[in-house]
Amino acid sequence: MIPQAQLVKRGEGVVKVTGLDAITSIDPSLPPEGYTLEVGTDGHNPVKVTGGSEAGVFYGIQTLRQLLPPASLRSAGDSSEASWEVPVQQISDAPRFAWRGVMLDVARHFMPLHDMLRFVELAAFHKLNVLHLHLTDDQGWRLPVDKWPRLTTMACWRKRSMLGSTKHGKYDARPHGGFYSKEDLKEFVAFAAQRHITVVPEIDMPGHVQAVVSAYPELGNGAKPDVREAWGISTHVLNMSDKAMEFCRDALDAVCEIFPGQLIGIGGDECPHDEWKANPDVQALMKQLGLADESALHGWFVGQMSDHLRSLGRRPFGWDEILAGGDGTPADVLIAAWRGPEPTKIAAQRGFEVVACPDVYVYLDYRQSADKDEPTPVGTMLTVEDVYAFEPVPAGLTKEEEKRVIGAQANIWTEHIESARRVDYMAYPRLCAFAEVAWGKPSDKSAADAFDKRLEEHLARLDALGVNYRPLTGPRPWDARPDAPGNPRTKEDRLAQLKEMIAELK
Amino acid sequence: MIPQAQLVKRGEGVVKVTGLDAITSIDPSLPPEGYTLEVGTDGHNPVKVTGGSEAGVFYGIQTLRQLLPPASLRSAGDSSEASWEVPVQQISDAPRFAWRGVMLDVARHFMPLHDMLRFVELAAFHKLNVLHLHLTDDQGWRLPVDKWPRLTTMACWRKRSMLGSTKHGKYDARPHGGFYSKEDLKEFVAFAAQRHITVVPEIDMPGHVQAVVSAYPELGNGAKPDVREAWGISTHVLNMSDKAMEFCRDALDAVCEIFPGQLIGIGGDECPHDEWKANPDVQALMKQLGLADESALHGWFVGQMSDHLRSLGRRPFGWDEILAGGDGTPADVLIAAWRGPEPTKIAAQRGFEVVACPDVYVYLDYRQSADKDEPTPVGTMLTVEDVYAFEPVPAGLTKEEEKRVIGAQANIWTEHIESARRVDYMAYPRLCAFAEVAWGKPSDKSAADAFDKRLEEHLARLDALGVNYRPLTGPRPWDARPDAPGNPRTKEDRLAQLKEMIAELK
Repeated sequence: MIPQAQLVKRGEGVVKVTGLDAITSIDPSLPPEGYTLEVGTDGHNPVKVTGGSEAGVFYGIQTLRQLLPPASLRSAGDSSEASWEVPVQQISDAPRFAWRGVMLDVARHFMPLHDMLRFVELAAFHKLNVLHLHLTDDQGWRLPVDKWPRLTTMACWRKRSMLGSTKHGKYDARPHGGFYSKEDLKEFVAFAAQRHITVVPEIDMPGHVQAVVSAYPELGNGAKPDVREAWGISTHVLNMSDKAMEFCRDALDAVCEIFPGQLIGIGGDECPHDEWKANPDVQALMKQLGLADESALHGWFVGQMSDHLRSLGRRPFGWDEILAGGDGTPADVLIAAWRGPEPTKIAAQRGFEVVACPDVYVYLDYRQSADKDEPTPVGTMLTVEDVYAFEPVPAGLTKEEEKRVIGAQANIWTEHIESARRVDYMAYPRLCAFAEVAWGKPSDKSAADAFDKRLEEHLARLDALGVNYRPLTGPRPWDARPDAPGNPRTKEDRLAQLKEMIAELK
Repeated sequence: MIPQAQLVKRGEGVVKVTGLDAITSIDPSLPPEGYTLEVGTDGHNPVKVTGGSEAGVFYGIQTLRQLLPPASLRSAGDSSEASWEVPVQQISDAPRFAWRGVMLDVARHFMPLHDMLRFVELAAFHKLNVLHLHLTDDQGWRLPVDKWPRLTTMACWRKRSMLGSTKHGKYDARPHGGFYSKEDLKEFVAFAAQRHITVVPEIDMPGHVQAVVSAYPELGNGAKPDVREAWGISTHVLNMSDKAMEFCRDALDAVCEIFPGQLIGIGGDECPHDEWKANPDVQALMKQLGLADESALHGWFVGQMSDHLRSLGRRPFGWDEILAGGDGTPADVLIAAWRGPEPTKIAAQRGFEVVACPDVYVYLDYRQSADKDEPTPVGTMLTVEDVYAFEPVPAGLTKEEEKRVIGAQANIWTEHIESARRVDYMAYPRLCAFAEVAWGKPSDKSAADAFDKRLEEHLARLDALGVNYRPLTGPRPWDARPDAPGNPRTKEDRLAQLKEMIAELK
């Protein structure tokens, strides 16, 4: 079973279970997402699921699905007539973390809605409960904002795409684009909610906006770029004019209209200051606002957006760069700490709630092995064992600081992931390991040690669910991407680089 | 509504309908796939569906789904709490043809199983009832055959793929491959059956086998080719040795183990004779069998395979090239008549049951307009109006001959269709027009004339179903494929070519 339930007490014998037919009830004395599952302890019905809430019941049912044979997971396999033998047992289970997230980047590569729905189904099967949706970036804007119609005629597509890592300078010769309608996104939210997954949308600002500047150059700093075709960080950022601020608020308004969840992502990462330094209007604004430097301007922007979200009854969510705002960083912002393990610690120590998503442990676009056929190997090596070894709560925190680490998140950036089939390959089976980290690795050491064995059994479930996971034996010939070369690096080098990058946070 | 129901009698007013909650029953006096649907003619329950069989009930429910607002078709939209107003009416409906098919080529481009399931769902929504699955071709073999394991290690992938039409000689630099497990295909069959769609698998033989010869050169005529990377017709064909015949029977045995339907496709199309002419062993075999020429050898092969299928209680299905076998053509073979409209007529006149799928009307890989951004324009122009104008039963047949035309089929070849998203684009909305042709265009002229208007309404349903259909206004910028140039041709030229090609059938 993955994630392994916290407590499993085996009884004697087996009982016959028909379909997913269980007696369910709610017991508010259980943890909200916790549940108990009893197989064969009741005479007339073999399965009883009691949840702390509807979510707990849902997770109990997900566990039941894993107790049945893998074939029952197939689309035509859970017919109500089918029945299976399940060992008598009592399970008592609850998650360690309240935030068990996965981020999906649909900006670098558009993913059709039906593939997103399937992605959510698979995440829910693994008891994840947050889907962080990265909707906008330099390379594409994926949702409508009524007052800014060119976002879905111009900013939503690019003429070609880079093939492989930036350093190779290779491109395909094919346009790429797409966007979701409001109805699509509302469907996504409702579908996820039915599976107890909260969708946290993100509009990345004030950097990662080259697509916006391409459609509306008046929001930029003089350049008239195309929607970005290369990967890497764009220098084209918002100009902080009244108009630009209006755009950002309009975008957040549009997002809040679609997404009912409390948290709204505002990005805040990787925003180069070059254009601001060269733009006299920006310099004048900084002077007018009494801001010492561009970092302060960035902090001011984050404050403005956070204020706006608060006025809408929402709460900001942003990358750990936001912490560079020092004392001005809004106290209620939830931090996604990605630049290695250190920012999680810094955020918690500085009093912020934080989600741990350090790249070297949970960036699932990073290569899965040193195999030469691993597709577009980027970042550090990140095997399924590496992911399983991830501990979201850094050492050296006080009890109170530890509580601020509300969970963990795996991130799937899609520069080098052009299809849902490839998302499967990069996400699985590593997301299985991550799910167990986020749900809580079993305190029973023998169960934890047996993750490898449980994973092998679990792959039969993924087969039944039609998941194109990376085989444990390595990539198949058709998984290779010789046309899209990567840029692998050592963990030592990456950690050294991160150390430099996060110096701004201390 | 698409396909339009044959008879709709509107009453007065509207009734409230909740979910898809209908009283269903079966009345064997109705046509097996026919149904009646009554809205608001019963006091306590507003919807009553009576089918001639379970299939009829299913089609009645599909019609009901189209009577509800499009939003109800969204994944999270058909919750049992939702309710809608539907006009009081009585519908009486039944299909014109028993075979309402669509062919999907998963050999040229592998399609993940979940995308195939979705394809079936959409086909069933349009009341199609046959899914012809083209599983093998020169460019890839997609299913396991136990005795021939290299089919799923070697024959199932190619090193690169041609980009665009053959004449340009362009290639990508990316491997492509994949295959289905037996369990995958059984799931597909069961899922389709739940939606009253019969899957008709096809193993293309004795040509279109370069992938097989690549894995097992001993089945070929001396060449040791790679799995084919180019499109077009391969000269590498089976050598007709005992071993080759054994291979073919093993492949058909494997297929029959997975697919329970009566009809099994054996291909039989586009088999060049060059290698046979040059292979002394083949010439010796022809002499031994007393066969006058290579056409006769081809006919002998079809006979052998048909005999084998018959011994398994099945019936052969093949392309119209099989008719070139003259009097030796097995009388029970069902013909897929594709080379223009003429072979349908010839087959029916010669006494064969036949499915009409003339390329110039229903090959959905053909270009949808003359727009320069139409992706990889190949074949003749085939607009949605052209498809709607298709009449499956040729003029000039006797009543008895007409009855042999058991239906129609649209074919989706995927040389230039690399993803499910692109399949959507090529299939829809033309498959909507095809579905109405196959179900039967309404005899009521005003309804037929109103197809355009009904299609516009129907697109809102496709939006809700997440279908990436081609907009009626033409391709969006990101639909273009400048990297994969096509080879458009005129209908006149194609018809002239077809006339030459089918001369062998008279």
